[in-house]
Amino acid sequence: MSRPTPLQVDDDELALLTDLYQLTMTQAYWKEAMHEVATFSLFFRRLPPQRRFMLACGQQHAAEVASRLRFTDGALARLASVDHFESGFLDWLANWRFEGDIWTLPEGTPVFANEPLLEVDAPIAQAQLLESLVMNLVQLETVLASKAVRIVMAARGRPVVDFGMRRMHGVDAAVRGVRAYRTAGLAGTSNVLGGLRHDLALNGTMAHSYVLAHDSEREAFRDFARYYPDTTLLVDTHDTLAGVRLAIELMRDAPELRIGAIRLDSGDLGELAKGARALLDEAGHEDIRIVASSGLDEQAIEALLADGAPIDAFGVGTQMGVAADAPVIDLSYKLVEYAGTPRVKHSTGKINLPGRKQVFRRRDATGHFRGDIIAGRDEAIEAATPLLMPSVKGGRPVPEAMALADTARERVARALTRLPATLRRLDHGESGYPVALSAALQRRVARD
Amino acid sequence: MSRPTPLQVDDDELALLTDLYQLTMTQAYWKEAMHEVATFSLFFRRLPPQRRFMLACGQQHAAEVASRLRFTDGALARLASVDHFESGFLDWLANWRFEGDIWTLPEGTPVFANEPLLEVDAPIAQAQLLESLVMNLVQLETVLASKAVRIVMAARGRPVVDFGMRRMHGVDAAVRGVRAYRTAGLAGTSNVLGGLRHDLALNGTMAHSYVLAHDSEREAFRDFARYYPDTTLLVDTHDTLAGVRLAIELMRDAPELRIGAIRLDSGDLGELAKGARALLDEAGHEDIRIVASSGLDEQAIEALLADGAPIDAFGVGTQMGVAADAPVIDLSYKLVEYAGTPRVKHSTGKINLPGRKQVFRRRDATGHFRGDIIAGRDEAIEAATPLLMPSVKGGRPVPEAMALADTARERVARALTRLPATLRRLDHGESGYPVALSAALQRRVARD
Repeated sequence: MSRPTPLQVDDDELALLTDLYQLTMTQAYWKEAMHEVATFSLFFRRLPPQRRFMLACGQQHAAEVASRLRFTDGALARLASVDHFESGFLDWLANWRFEGDIWTLPEGTPVFANEPLLEVDAPIAQAQLLESLVMNLVQLETVLASKAVRIVMAARGRPVVDFGMRRMHGVDAAVRGVRAYRTAGLAGTSNVLGGLRHDLALNGTMAHSYVLAHDSEREAFRDFARYYPDTTLLVDTHDTLAGVRLAIELMRDAPELRIGAIRLDSGDLGELAKGARALLDEAGHEDIRIVASSGLDEQAIEALLADGAPIDAFGVGTQMGVAADAPVIDLSYKLVEYAGTPRVKHSTGKINLPGRKQVFRRRDATGHFRGDIIAGRDEAIEAATPLLMPSVKGGRPVPEAMALADTARERVARALTRLPATLRRLDHGESGYPVALSAALQRRVARD
Repeated sequence: MSRPTPLQVDDDELALLTDLYQLTMTQAYWKEAMHEVATFSLFFRRLPPQRRFMLACGQQHAAEVASRLRFTDGALARLASVDHFESGFLDWLANWRFEGDIWTLPEGTPVFANEPLLEVDAPIAQAQLLESLVMNLVQLETVLASKAVRIVMAARGRPVVDFGMRRMHGVDAAVRGVRAYRTAGLAGTSNVLGGLRHDLALNGTMAHSYVLAHDSEREAFRDFARYYPDTTLLVDTHDTLAGVRLAIELMRDAPELRIGAIRLDSGDLGELAKGARALLDEAGHEDIRIVASSGLDEQAIEALLADGAPIDAFGVGTQMGVAADAPVIDLSYKLVEYAGTPRVKHSTGKINLPGRKQVFRRRDATGHFRGDIIAGRDEAIEAATPLLMPSVKGGRPVPEAMALADTARERVARALTRLPATLRRLDHGESGYPVALSAALQRRVARD
């Protein structure tokens, strides 16, 4: 490239992060003086077969971003270079603000097919313009957190650390992914900027290149352990168990060296962990932990632990970083009401739920989730908790609601103890979790 | 969140886009005064079974980013808050510059297993620090372009437009993805910022919400066509063929309205396209094109066209946006030489090619690719073209090499006419493309 390609998206450009038709439709609404209030609903029609639930993530962040979206002079100048837009419309965009309401599930809420993660009530030219950006923001975190939480469950309390930055889809995925991982319950990340920005512990070990650059593995281990007390040594550069023996010798010869853990990154991780554990224990190093990495996902971790592999922590990258088995969900942002009238697209074989809605969750006496009811926004459902709450009101973030994003990690941890056992299974299959429509909503569906 | 979460990565933060161990290893190299030149090689070990070749993309951009990477005061202040780093090391990082060489394949080069996409020669503390960022940048564009080019091939010359922004993995993927799509040969994108930044035509139609917000489909069609001459009308909100008839009636009643195309976005696209084409032709509208979208990938497009579906252009989102069938490649950035000595990790069942390398491509008299030879960097292979070229020399971008990124799209278009027919097949199977090692490299592998 003759000129540098920027990596960042400036605030000047945020409003241009949209599909062209959002702008052409908005101009049409402006020309037609269609200023009535619309409600759009963000939901997915079906769970991927590889997921028994999704964690709704990113929606409160998306609401906050929407509340501060502006068309700056810079953005308008660039739009003026695109065909289609009249100067009167661009002038109007200069004063465009989101002044409506955004209802969201608190971040980290387990969510099922057809349940709104977010609903927007605003003049249609405001609500329409949020679609592409809100979907992109929610998609990423929801997909990543929903994969990561399965890995956290598979690890049964052992720490899971994100090693995925290098294989994730670009810079924003890598950095914002850490926000989703924090919500899902990961213990740490190797990603420096991601961890610093999203308040997740930084972890790191060493790479094979460090060992290879030294004249011997012994020298590499000795120097690294000297610089970083309690560090993790990567023992599989040449021969894994020989690497373990070397670490043990090193500690014998230089008792001042403290090694916290060893990492296995290739081969049969279960067998090597057993072999390494035996060697370490025999040498009196019961306190040295074993970290495993290399192509791990929830199935691999479940199998290793079922087989009794003495692994204390997992580093997970590739499979989690792109949610490889279900990298996308079929999110929709659909108009469900305009000018006070429920609206809906009729499609063969698809349910579309007209009007403003609320999701109610029933719990039993011990707090376990028993089932959900999707209802009209203003319904009251006995013995059930409404989940959608206003995160933005009249264009302004609601501080108490926004603060719930900070407790997403705790919410997920609590939810994991309250999900029915079938939802916590890691194999593929129907969740069987009951999601019903309220009687009033059923009547509305039948009427439309 | 109590404070807004930024979406962008500032230049201040670029150097923090790395894995923690790159920084701890670099500090160790600094403490050990290990300043010899290292060579790292970026390659993948195997093609995903869903790909017969990959398009190497993003590596020249990554080289350019590497050449301007700096640790700003802001970045250093944040690193000082992390355990592990000595103030002497942070002072040294303040003057850190990449001063080495980066060899790259020109962007848009078809590439196969074990072939370096990029090699870095630099003092080890410079080359090591590039790893995570370079891998992240190359991964995204290579994965996306390699999927997109299959869709371009399936469409057999018909335009393919990117509709994927909303379902891609975050903001950077959506925007930089357009760069990869441009390289792969897409005709346009709906993504406004992506298209403006990466010089790909902007396309857009209308959404179901626009139709639903109007009192009638007729009114919606009429207004939109009036505002946007030659626009594309979305005809499937209620009943697809009724929508087509409505568009025809509208043109009959208001001959001043010009409609360029109709879009089908649900149902049996092949049957509906045939029905729509018949209705349009019968009414004398042979010039109105049919655009199809809705869950398309290369297999679906190939099947539609094989069945004679009269579709003129394709809008593709979800499947292409995350390269759903192969969302990740197993990229490695491996130390292959240090201080003039080839180095390599020995792993059972994996080939590791020591030393600095070059990729040579043989062509027959008509320019068709006949096979590749991976050789030592300084070898000369008769009747074969070396593909890796210096993009950065002594820390500075090489303008003639960088300019090749601007012709990536043309390079791919040309390559598609020169790939063996088996490589252009869209089903899964071995590519059968011959990639050999030179005799000298074989000897080096045997020796190490």
